[in-house]
Amino acid sequence: MATVRLWTDADVDANPAVKAVFDDIRATRKSEFVNNFWRGLANDPPLLKRTWEGLKAVMSAPGALDPLVREMIYIAVSTANACQYCIHSHTAAARAKGMTDAQHGELLAIIGLAAQTNHLVTAMQIPVDPEFEVKG
Amino acid sequence: MATVRLWTDADVDANPAVKAVFDDIRATRKSEFVNNFWRGLANDPPLLKRTWEGLKAVMSAPGALDPLVREMIYIAVSTANACQYCIHSHTAAARAKGMTDAQHGELLAIIGLAAQTNHLVTAMQIPVDPEFEVKG
Amino acid sequence: MATVRLWTDADVDANPAVKAVFDDIRATRKSEFVNNFWRGLANDPPLLKRTWEGLKAVMSAPGALDPLVREMIYIAVSTANACQYCIHSHTAAARAKGMTDAQHGELLAIIGLAAQTNHLVTAMQIPVDPEFEVKG
Amino acid sequence: MATVRLWTDADVDANPAVKAVFDDIRATRKSEFVNNFWRGLANDPPLLKRTWEGLKAVMSAPGALDPLVREMIYIAVSTANACQYCIHSHTAAARAKGMTDAQHGELLAIIGLAAQTNHLVTAMQIPVDPEFEVKG
Amino acid sequence: MATVRLWTDADVDANPAVKAVFDDIRATRKSEFVNNFWRGLANDPPLLKRTWEGLKAVMSAPGALDPLVREMIYIAVSTANACQYCIHSHTAAARAKGMTDAQHGELLAIIGLAAQTNHLVTAMQIPVDPEFEVKG
Amino acid sequence: MATVRLWTDADVDANPAVKAVFDDIRATRKSEFVNNFWRGLANDPPLLKRTWEGLKAVMSAPGALDPLVREMIYIAVSTANACQYCIHSHTAAARAKGMTDAQHGELLAIIGLAAQTNHLVTAMQIPVDPEFEVKG
Repeated sequence: MATVRLWTDADVDANPAVKAVFDDIRATRKSEFVNNFWRGLANDPPLLKRTWEGLKAVMSAPGALDPLVREMIYIAVSTANACQYCIHSHTAAARAKGMTDAQHGELLAIIGLAAQTNHLVTAMQIPVDPEFEVKG
Repeated sequence: MATVRLWTDADVDANPAVKAVFDDIRATRKSEFVNNFWRGLANDPPLLKRTWEGLKAVMSAPGALDPLVREMIYIAVSTANACQYCIHSHTAAARAKGMTDAQHGELLAIIGLAAQTNHLVTAMQIPVDPEFEVKG
Repeated sequence: MATVRLWTDADVDANPAVKAVFDDIRATRKSEFVNNFWRGLANDPPLLKRTWEGLKAVMSAPGALDPLVREMIYIAVSTANACQYCIHSHTAAARAKGMTDAQHGELLAIIGLAAQTNHLVTAMQIPVDPEFEVKG
Repeated sequence: MATVRLWTDADVDANPAVKAVFDDIRATRKSEFVNNFWRGLANDPPLLKRTWEGLKAVMSAPGALDPLVREMIYIAVSTANACQYCIHSHTAAARAKGMTDAQHGELLAIIGLAAQTNHLVTAMQIPVDPEFEVKG
Repeated sequence: MATVRLWTDADVDANPAVKAVFDDIRATRKSEFVNNFWRGLANDPPLLKRTWEGLKAVMSAPGALDPLVREMIYIAVSTANACQYCIHSHTAAARAKGMTDAQHGELLAIIGLAAQTNHLVTAMQIPVDPEFEVKG
Repeated sequence: MATVRLWTDADVDANPAVKAVFDDIRATRKSEFVNNFWRGLANDPPLLKRTWEGLKAVMSAPGALDPLVREMIYIAVSTANACQYCIHSHTAAARAKGMTDAQHGELLAIIGLAAQTNHLVTAMQIPVDPEFEVKG
């Protein structure tokens, strides 16, 4: 159960600002399926538009990082932020982009290891080595 | 200032169990430099050993993910966990493994975007779409 | 399913210390409904009493912040801490205090934006500008 | 020490895309001062532009929430995410927008209380009451 | 619903590397029951093995901390990290090791208090007193 | 640098409500030293009083958990919440209550392990086993 109403396709069709974003999601992803996240954001059309445009720019535009790598970084952040929905949706997206079981296993291992050393470092309050400093 | 003592090389040399791990760190990394994290963990030699072996297996062994990708995933988790030291050390490691400014910029953009959508999803308590379900 | 037993009204009526707190919750809120949070805390009557008194002082007493603003701040913290129950209960409370769809949409937008910039700042480890310093 | 280079005004002046954003920051805020966050983001001009436009839309545009309330919500999220820089910069911004000591004290009290009950709820895994459900 | 397949006993029996770990879990715990966490990790046998060996060393080996105290510390971390499954499994484990209602109530009170003061301290950005410094 | 003014002893002496709390802190702890946390909270006397009374009840009153165990649980939560000041102050408190190097090492190991498994579980979205359910 959500804290906002999830818009049906009929709701979307009745609101041109929302419909324009949904049309672009469907065209960009070449799929009719629009997941619940966007159906919740539809309650605030400008937020829906800004969020979709940010996501499209970062996750779909050509760039220096492979699309699958982008999804794995997304899963890593979503796990540390304990976002259940995001973990589900981006693991599915990574699978759709070709993530193998071996890659998924390594991703999980890195996430777990990083969390472990993050907590160890924080509990010990280790000072940053001068060797790590960025030179002006 | 740390909550534990940071071991000097002289301290390390006087403790064979710790010295063995430091020797392996230096050999694996082909560098004399051993950063403060390990000098703090040295206070508990079995924890030092287990942590190093876990890190070596996950970050250095051959596998399905590129070493630079592994570092970027590490940075993503460390950022969400607000581990300042880890962000410094693994950004330096990623740079050493060839991360370009463009790749770093995209990494930051994904981390920021994921955090934004993580919080939006959580605040709206969006239910997971059945389409994301893993088939038994 | 909870990790503690949730007290029924019959359980509450049989324990005078718990009943006194539940009576005050009902009187303060002018409602017979007492939500599950208090039914879980009832397992430790002193913790129940301290928690309710803290909440009453902070959320219900006259003060410098509007009651609806207080609820929106509560939702913001609960989202960043990924507390699903708290998000549900305080979004319902904010609605009951008059939060409009437009206010909810802006609240979500700020939460998402703050999370995004929090993560960007942390990943870049930006030093605090001296201009932000509090003067003694 | 940051993990990226902080751009000086001379660096900014030499890059038209960055300079355009800095000019808009200065014009919008009616101040010559541009804080370090933007000087770090300048390393990735498209990310700088998107982030500033998102922030301007959410924090400065007319809307349903008072600008000071927006800053207090920002502080709440930044605290839960342990973003030191963000807490400093947005507490300074809230002060500049008129936050009194009494309002700051109440904000802190709510943040602390919410964190306490967030953790209590999570540790007890309290199920959401059906009364909190959003009606379709 | 998980993002990985949960291995049945038949799956486990067909994979010697996984079966060896499951046999050790059953022998160490003197119980036939193996919980879902291990059935998910089975998808990556080396990660399964490393995780189990780490857990066995830290939680089951003789040491300076009482086994019940170890479980309570585990619950505290899991709560702050909002790991629902971990809270359930380790609260059950603590109960099995003799945690009383009074101890559970005090554990919850400390977790809640710590979270409250953590957030207060962070929002105020309190500088560390020199009195807390560890002497070299 | 804090976001609030830290009260000096002269400031405290001039405010009877604040002075009463500081006197009780000194009497309870049998020490003249009052750390910076309370000097920041002094800006809001009712919040100072409530926070101190909550802390005294949970951390100092007789109960089912050993005072040192309470401090270790506090450190665990503070680490997961990345509260640097709290980690320093409560590690110092634990040392003052007799925490040995061996106990500290085990505490760190449990914190690190819990964080690792928390993240693994969350990334895999493992469903709670019915065996962990609390019976009504």
